[in-house]
Amino acid sequence: MNLHSEKLAILRNLMKENDIDLYIIPTTDPHLGENIPDHWRIVSWLTGFTGSSATVVITELFAGLWTDSRYVLQADKQLLDSEFILMKNSLHEQNNFNDWISENVEPEGKIALDGRIFSIDQTRRIERSSERKKVTFNFSSDLISGIWEDRPPLPQNMAFDHSVTFCGMDRSAKIAEVREQMKFKGVDYHLLTSLEDIMWLLNIRGNDIRYSPLLISFAIIGTDQVLLFTDENKIPLKLASEFDWLGIVILPYEETASVLSALPADSTILLNPSTTSSSLFKSIPGGMKIIEDLTIPARLKAIKNKVEIDNIRRVMIKDGVSLTKFFFWLEQNLGSVTLSEISLGEKLNGLRSENENYLGPSFSIIVAFNEHGALPHYSATINSAISIGTAGILLIDSGGQYLDGTTDITRTIAIGKPTARKKRDFTLVLKGFICLARTKFPAGTRGFQLDVLARRDLWDDGLNYGHGTGHGVGFCLNVHEGPQNIGQAAGPDSGTVIDPGMLISDEPGIYREGEYGIRIENLIICAEDEETEFGKFLRFETLSLCYLDKSLIDISLLTQKEIEWLNSYHAEVYEKLNPFLTSSENLWLIEKTKGLE
Amino acid sequence: MNLHSEKLAILRNLMKENDIDLYIIPTTDPHLGENIPDHWRIVSWLTGFTGSSATVVITELFAGLWTDSRYVLQADKQLLDSEFILMKNSLHEQNNFNDWISENVEPEGKIALDGRIFSIDQTRRIERSSERKKVTFNFSSDLISGIWEDRPPLPQNMAFDHSVTFCGMDRSAKIAEVREQMKFKGVDYHLLTSLEDIMWLLNIRGNDIRYSPLLISFAIIGTDQVLLFTDENKIPLKLASEFDWLGIVILPYEETASVLSALPADSTILLNPSTTSSSLFKSIPGGMKIIEDLTIPARLKAIKNKVEIDNIRRVMIKDGVSLTKFFFWLEQNLGSVTLSEISLGEKLNGLRSENENYLGPSFSIIVAFNEHGALPHYSATINSAISIGTAGILLIDSGGQYLDGTTDITRTIAIGKPTARKKRDFTLVLKGFICLARTKFPAGTRGFQLDVLARRDLWDDGLNYGHGTGHGVGFCLNVHEGPQNIGQAAGPDSGTVIDPGMLISDEPGIYREGEYGIRIENLIICAEDEETEFGKFLRFETLSLCYLDKSLIDISLLTQKEIEWLNSYHAEVYEKLNPFLTSSENLWLIEKTKGLE
Repeated sequence: MNLHSEKLAILRNLMKENDIDLYIIPTTDPHLGENIPDHWRIVSWLTGFTGSSATVVITELFAGLWTDSRYVLQADKQLLDSEFILMKNSLHEQNNFNDWISENVEPEGKIALDGRIFSIDQTRRIERSSERKKVTFNFSSDLISGIWEDRPPLPQNMAFDHSVTFCGMDRSAKIAEVREQMKFKGVDYHLLTSLEDIMWLLNIRGNDIRYSPLLISFAIIGTDQVLLFTDENKIPLKLASEFDWLGIVILPYEETASVLSALPADSTILLNPSTTSSSLFKSIPGGMKIIEDLTIPARLKAIKNKVEIDNIRRVMIKDGVSLTKFFFWLEQNLGSVTLSEISLGEKLNGLRSENENYLGPSFSIIVAFNEHGALPHYSATINSAISIGTAGILLIDSGGQYLDGTTDITRTIAIGKPTARKKRDFTLVLKGFICLARTKFPAGTRGFQLDVLARRDLWDDGLNYGHGTGHGVGFCLNVHEGPQNIGQAAGPDSGTVIDPGMLISDEPGIYREGEYGIRIENLIICAEDEETEFGKFLRFETLSLCYLDKSLIDISLLTQKEIEWLNSYHAEVYEKLNPFLTSSENLWLIEKTKGLE
Repeated sequence: MNLHSEKLAILRNLMKENDIDLYIIPTTDPHLGENIPDHWRIVSWLTGFTGSSATVVITELFAGLWTDSRYVLQADKQLLDSEFILMKNSLHEQNNFNDWISENVEPEGKIALDGRIFSIDQTRRIERSSERKKVTFNFSSDLISGIWEDRPPLPQNMAFDHSVTFCGMDRSAKIAEVREQMKFKGVDYHLLTSLEDIMWLLNIRGNDIRYSPLLISFAIIGTDQVLLFTDENKIPLKLASEFDWLGIVILPYEETASVLSALPADSTILLNPSTTSSSLFKSIPGGMKIIEDLTIPARLKAIKNKVEIDNIRRVMIKDGVSLTKFFFWLEQNLGSVTLSEISLGEKLNGLRSENENYLGPSFSIIVAFNEHGALPHYSATINSAISIGTAGILLIDSGGQYLDGTTDITRTIAIGKPTARKKRDFTLVLKGFICLARTKFPAGTRGFQLDVLARRDLWDDGLNYGHGTGHGVGFCLNVHEGPQNIGQAAGPDSGTVIDPGMLISDEPGIYREGEYGIRIENLIICAEDEETEFGKFLRFETLSLCYLDKSLIDISLLTQKEIEWLNSYHAEVYEKLNPFLTSSENLWLIEKTKGLE
């Protein structure tokens, strides 16, 4: 019996002792974020699967794991020697584990889970999935704490002040604006559970979560006070005294539920049911009126202010300089030095780390050569990494967290002379990428309306890609941060209206299994265009700065407007980056950015 | 006091007598269809507003009417002398009257309506809108029958058999297929309330509703019988005896609710909550399990079968011949004869009526010259009609009901030499129209994903149009018939996956208020394209056949692919229509369809 089977056996014993027929475990933490501290990586500890998104369902005779399409290959490998069965999810049905429960739970059985790490939306879906079976539920069942030996503690890292010179608006003004909106909505209290909401509101950043500068905390905004639930040792004294001055009260992290339960029952609270845990939700006093919606900070911080936008523009220059130096170095060393996916990643991260205000990578860098490029979210390991040969396609998706902004950019380059098919694929992706970047659209347009612009030229050739076209990006916060989004589904995210000031990625691709992957990604920001008799129109401005590999372009497929867009983008790249490059780098970049005719 | 004020006063008295604080009246009938018999045109009788879509709310001191954007101008005029206030609806908020009720109803007040002419979806929204006010509801309050003198009776016209040579599948096979799907869904009974569902299922057509060949009826499909609720005098004897043979039982229309209420309480019924009236819904026995979804016939009939598609192709030829003869005649007579919007409509309808299997127009013809073209859904009347001058833009949107298919086509032509701006507008609309017509897309694509294809070139110029891009079309049924749809919102309709066999319109436009309107519309049908490693791809085939006015095209704005599409379309138009035209018509059509270079 291997380690994971032992753990499963112990867990099943505990289920039996507690009379539980079915136990559910997620990959989330009490804040329902994308990246979580090791303390909450229960699925990885229990099953060996290390991906960031999965649900595990355990009964006496069944142990299954559901994940999304991008992790299927990885889960297949990692679960090979375990008792856990990988349940294949279809692309559009995220809730398949609910369907499974609905069909397989015993009538009048007992379903249990730890309500601290499930959103209220999730537990509602679970309840609905089995409502016909007259099941009973226990949503406060933590079976893990007692059996996980050597469980990593919650991180203990210091938070720090995030200066107004970076974020452009002081915390008291933000609190005042949120309170004004609360008043308008008739809300007395506003519960914040997403770390990025709290960071934005209080102009603080932390060091608790990998890839995002977040401090583990909850907050409740009232009419006079803001209650910040966190470890007070993590707040620097100077910041704590400023907080005190502004009516921001620091309380122990563990007391969030009990403070919530003591709020006046005749008052109104606003919260987001997809980021508020079932446990916190249930601690709210019975009579209290609950308004469920996106949080006010989530909407406010999605619209970047002028200072933030100016900062992001400057960040794009330093980030673009690092990328340019990297690609120059790569071309100089190709063939003479042995280069692997890992060493390239280290080189690029190293160049970025020399930049002012740099905090670290904004996600796990993707350096994927040839067939690895066809694996979405491929991350090279010592076992998987391959050397960069003399012919092929290299895809690099990377980004940095800076105090003055967050970046995320993908470039695909040819090593050696590319085939006609690779050029055609790249050029079709490029056409979609340009089409979205230069589109003009009426105010009020939603993300799902724009998605097809990046796909149409691919569709024409019978091609497509399985991921969204664009995700929202935070400001020195999460690299994936909504609510804005450009995707195919009309879900809550892609349904968000794209407003001026929203930062979003533009990243179509093509993935040919076993061969190569092509993706091109820039960050673009929504800006006002003109007002006509047909209403107000908006457009995107491209912010990321790095050349695109012309050796992969089949010019005959581009329209005049596309060529003009590309030439003008390349001219801007050279103009903005050249002051920070050596003369040999500049000579090289002049070639890379020379106009197409 | 005018007539409408008198009626309002009488109604208010009745409300007082019945202790009703707020009364709601819709423009629908018990089948929640788009066109309704005069018997149910309560809003028109009460207020004078004759549009097809409105909601009236009456309290002691308030009388308001909500309609959608296309009827605002008309309602403004028609309500001028009445006490009814036109409540301005914003484009995207169809339920504004609910918001008004939510804000204005007295706490603990009593809201009443006639539940026979509100869908259960609508009454649920009304309940939700005022749930905080502790209101009581009376959803079976018919205050109109008692006070409407000379109310038109329900129509008494005969139904007729719709031959399998037209519709391609006999009624017993359709019933069997629906029953198979019912079995799969675990459904014992299936309630049909939409007339088109019943017509499709039983291969009958009626003469009760203007513009659509429908018989007023309800139906309940059981495992052995189909209960058809209608006036049995309207069913020809031969058909009745065949019905008898197939287990189709004719019962009185008025008994639908009582038969529903007598169904076994331990069985399951499938119905569509947006087309089932609140009254019928409430007559279902308490314990019965209700599954709410689109009806099975609604999905089945949206996919046209091979015989239907072949018939539609033939219908398009005769319909296209009528249009061609019409435009030829128009060009011969312009300037020499006085032509008005009304006489043109009569001429075109007259030409169509000569065609085999013609039943009548599929909607109220739109012939709109210059500024009238900017009014969506303009319908010329003796008071409004203007003469066709020697310079301007003429928009004609028309269609026919044939036993072998339903048509809907819009052409915009220049009278005299068009200005550069008109040509630019027309060409941008044409680009969107072609883009949608020739797009290829993956199976599983939904209507809202494709909508932007028809708008993008307009957006680029700061232009847009306020209606959807495409509506589903029935087969010798309704000219507007979903569930498929191509629109901007991600509602239930535009959310429908576009499957092979679905017939849909492609009709972008530009409306310059006070100047002119441009719209181009063809019917297109979804067909299979190729299967690649990225999945199955679909495309549209254009079915409508009529030349587009080249004098309105600015060739410099078209891409090579667009020119090729247009030339090939024009070649097809000539090839298919020329055998049915006179030699002078053919000489003229050769010019109209000659290729652009």
